[in-house]
Amino acid sequence: FLPNRHHLGIVAVGFSGGQPKPGVDAAPMALIEAGLIQQLEEDLEFDVAFDDQVHSYAEIVPAEDPPYRNMKRPKFVSAVTKEVSNQVYNHSKNGKLVLTLGGDHSIAIGTISGTARAIRERLGRDLAVIWVDAHADINTPETSESGNIHGMPVAFLTGLATEEKEEMFGWLKEHHRISTKKLVYIGLRDIDKGEKKILKEHGIKAFSMHDIDRHGIGKVMDMVLGWIGSDTPIHLSFDVDALDPMWAPSTGTPVRGGLTLREGDFIAECVAETGSLVALDLVEVNPSLDEQGASDTVRAGCSIVRCALGDTLL
Amino acid sequence: FLPNRHHLGIVAVGFSGGQPKPGVDAAPMALIEAGLIQQLEEDLEFDVAFDDQVHSYAEIVPAEDPPYRNMKRPKFVSAVTKEVSNQVYNHSKNGKLVLTLGGDHSIAIGTISGTARAIRERLGRDLAVIWVDAHADINTPETSESGNIHGMPVAFLTGLATEEKEEMFGWLKEHHRISTKKLVYIGLRDIDKGEKKILKEHGIKAFSMHDIDRHGIGKVMDMVLGWIGSDTPIHLSFDVDALDPMWAPSTGTPVRGGLTLREGDFIAECVAETGSLVALDLVEVNPSLDEQGASDTVRAGCSIVRCALGDTLL
Amino acid sequence: FLPNRHHLGIVAVGFSGGQPKPGVDAAPMALIEAGLIQQLEEDLEFDVAFDDQVHSYAEIVPAEDPPYRNMKRPKFVSAVTKEVSNQVYNHSKNGKLVLTLGGDHSIAIGTISGTARAIRERLGRDLAVIWVDAHADINTPETSESGNIHGMPVAFLTGLATEEKEEMFGWLKEHHRISTKKLVYIGLRDIDKGEKKILKEHGIKAFSMHDIDRHGIGKVMDMVLGWIGSDTPIHLSFDVDALDPMWAPSTGTPVRGGLTLREGDFIAECVAETGSLVALDLVEVNPSLDEQGASDTVRAGCSIVRCALGDTLL
Ligand SMILES: [Mn+2]
Ligand SMILES: [Mn+2]
Ligand SMILES: [Mn+2]
Ligand SMILES: [Mn+2]
Ligand SMILES: [Mn+2]
Ligand SMILES: [Mn+2]
Repeated sequence: FLPNRHHLGIVAVGFSGGQPKPGVDAAPMALIEAGLIQQLEEDLEFDVAFDDQVHSYAEIVPAEDPPYRNMKRPKFVSAVTKEVSNQVYNHSKNGKLVLTLGGDHSIAIGTISGTARAIRERLGRDLAVIWVDAHADINTPETSESGNIHGMPVAFLTGLATEEKEEMFGWLKEHHRISTKKLVYIGLRDIDKGEKKILKEHGIKAFSMHDIDRHGIGKVMDMVLGWIGSDTPIHLSFDVDALDPMWAPSTGTPVRGGLTLREGDFIAECVAETGSLVALDLVEVNPSLDEQGASDTVRAGCSIVRCALGDTLL
Repeated sequence: FLPNRHHLGIVAVGFSGGQPKPGVDAAPMALIEAGLIQQLEEDLEFDVAFDDQVHSYAEIVPAEDPPYRNMKRPKFVSAVTKEVSNQVYNHSKNGKLVLTLGGDHSIAIGTISGTARAIRERLGRDLAVIWVDAHADINTPETSESGNIHGMPVAFLTGLATEEKEEMFGWLKEHHRISTKKLVYIGLRDIDKGEKKILKEHGIKAFSMHDIDRHGIGKVMDMVLGWIGSDTPIHLSFDVDALDPMWAPSTGTPVRGGLTLREGDFIAECVAETGSLVALDLVEVNPSLDEQGASDTVRAGCSIVRCALGDTLL
Repeated sequence: FLPNRHHLGIVAVGFSGGQPKPGVDAAPMALIEAGLIQQLEEDLEFDVAFDDQVHSYAEIVPAEDPPYRNMKRPKFVSAVTKEVSNQVYNHSKNGKLVLTLGGDHSIAIGTISGTARAIRERLGRDLAVIWVDAHADINTPETSESGNIHGMPVAFLTGLATEEKEEMFGWLKEHHRISTKKLVYIGLRDIDKGEKKILKEHGIKAFSMHDIDRHGIGKVMDMVLGWIGSDTPIHLSFDVDALDPMWAPSTGTPVRGGLTLREGDFIAECVAETGSLVALDLVEVNPSLDEQGASDTVRAGCSIVRCALGDTLL
């Protein structure tokens, strides 16, 4: 689905407005300083298009941003994700593979909508999304208890949550959206009651940690990729909290019983092997939390990205 | 096998007399203070019958209790387990699911004998036992090197060890016992030579860590539950030392190379899925050992209990 | 392939000259002080032939030893491995199972060449080698970047690297060598580009961590042993860095994402079950690195050895 597998666009999103903890905005710089882009250029031979800046979107902070429909900072998150959507779209419509370094997971409203639109325009195809996360992030503004938008991106992207006001995600149109049938979760282990109901009602494909224990990660990836099929472009949205806190402690909402480092890399490697990857997000690395574990978390993040972009052991 | 899946009886056994290390008697309070009972009531909607006390059985400490047939404190352990047997029996004969919070593993002489008797009386069926443990706890007084009774409960429960004196486990009658054919071990990795011989001679079904590595925990649980069959009530006796010390360090006899937290939860979830669980023990949490790891160990214990009682990820 | 499974020859090689970090020479003593030999005699009932010394080969340190063909300390490593080759050969030609305690992995030039020659002479058969390692150790002097010979033993043993000068591994003759077809790797995860090319070109069987994640270690061992076949004597060369640094941190070149302790033991147990093991190396334990983790690393090493020599859980 890409004219040249070596053309990579990178967007660095230093954004933490979808949740309350500062620090996740520093992740793109930490990943870059760990040598990630250099590794992609030198070891994996990518031709990288990168504007050499971590975007903070300070210029679009709204003057006032009171809660709306229970959402916290709705205007700012809406404006930032709209801008991210355009940034990703611009890379993707040119046939580039797109890597977005977050930031909290609310930014996926931007990344996936941008990819979905570009792939529709460029290839006339619907996008599949593999969402690797401890959480389902599929609350609607009404089912969310916290009001943090990083718990809602999938609801907006699938149209389970909609909003008419342009400045409150009303900019998300049909061509930005994905189907609940083209969405697959891996790694779930901390799901709200409202979310469990949504997953069941819509028959959304989800592999929890229980499923990974039952079948092994090898069989689970066979099922994930079999569900998607070989004819569908894939956007991989990887929340680092999918990994167990033993390997990735520096994240805002860690949950025990997660993926091992090896399983995380394995998922990324299997997606790479399909040749269908068109976009990748790495989100929720927060180097200011559990500072002792920050370098491990950053290294894990770099490893996931390298594996998803084609690095292999043999 | 239960008239109402929501009726739960809880017995809190603050007993450490089956082994030499103090502290395991404090486990029931630690588990309760961590919110376990509240979680069972609120999240899993149990109607809990609990006498609101951790029993220390101080009133039945014998005046004298010298070793007998190599057993240490035989009279006290016999008296306590007889009392526990009655406590569990009283819940189980009323059709309640019974949760016992130990205490060291000697208390299973009480819990399993109580359940076995109640299930025979109420349903006319033999009980199956799933024993999750690093150890087989099947020494007879004669094969035991330490004389600690927490290493002997399975021998007494299966009738491999018997004793006529009423005050030395002579109270255990045929209707209290289980068959070696209805016993399955999971997680074994530190077995005495005498025990290996017993397991072989009696053809007892046992899945060691080697078997879990070979087949994966998913396949092992298929084999465990296939062996038991769907027509048999199950008592799950879970020794927290089955988990690797990495996740459950605060226990009296930790052994490396154990179950991951995920595998422990998975075993409990699979037993819950059968719908055949009639009683559950959680034993050998000792918050005074490896105090830094105590909260992890307690959390692991709570998680095992919740999973066995029906909590699910999705 | 052994006249008496209980006859064990032990060679203790306190050698660190194949790489730059001091301390790996202290491993044999650390393993012995941890009780390894006693366990082999008492628990596994071996009749042990051991000269009761850790060889440092100080008497054969060459006066001058400048780099040659990029190799560091080539004469010393050549002389030591030649001597080790003879030590192992002398045990093996007498039908003994041989355990070598290293030392860095360069010593495998000695151990495997000694076994290969003895097995050819005694049984007229070619030796198979199972090389458990994070690294492939198959650099030639020319592909190596570091010049450390512990990264080259497989190249010399398979004849991919050859050298005429007697004092520079010229002593390695055809009867010392093994076929690339009889070599199987397990645990690879840090392979140089030149090595990847060698592995592909020669069709060498290799199971990386990715393969272990995909299939599970049980299935991988079926494939490893199926490739070798039941009619072939096996030399197991186990580099402790195959284990994840979480369990074996005290080693010169640790690499994340490795085998769990359980997987390491499992590999050893499966090799023991074949009944085809004729020699075993345990290498790269360095107690002076990550001193806090040294006892864990030593214990892991002892466990691997015991499992490979027939210890079982049940
Ligand atoms: Mn998450
Ligand atoms: Mn997320
Ligand atoms: Mn026990
Ligand atoms: Mn135990
Ligand atoms: Mn090596
Ligand atoms: Mn190595």
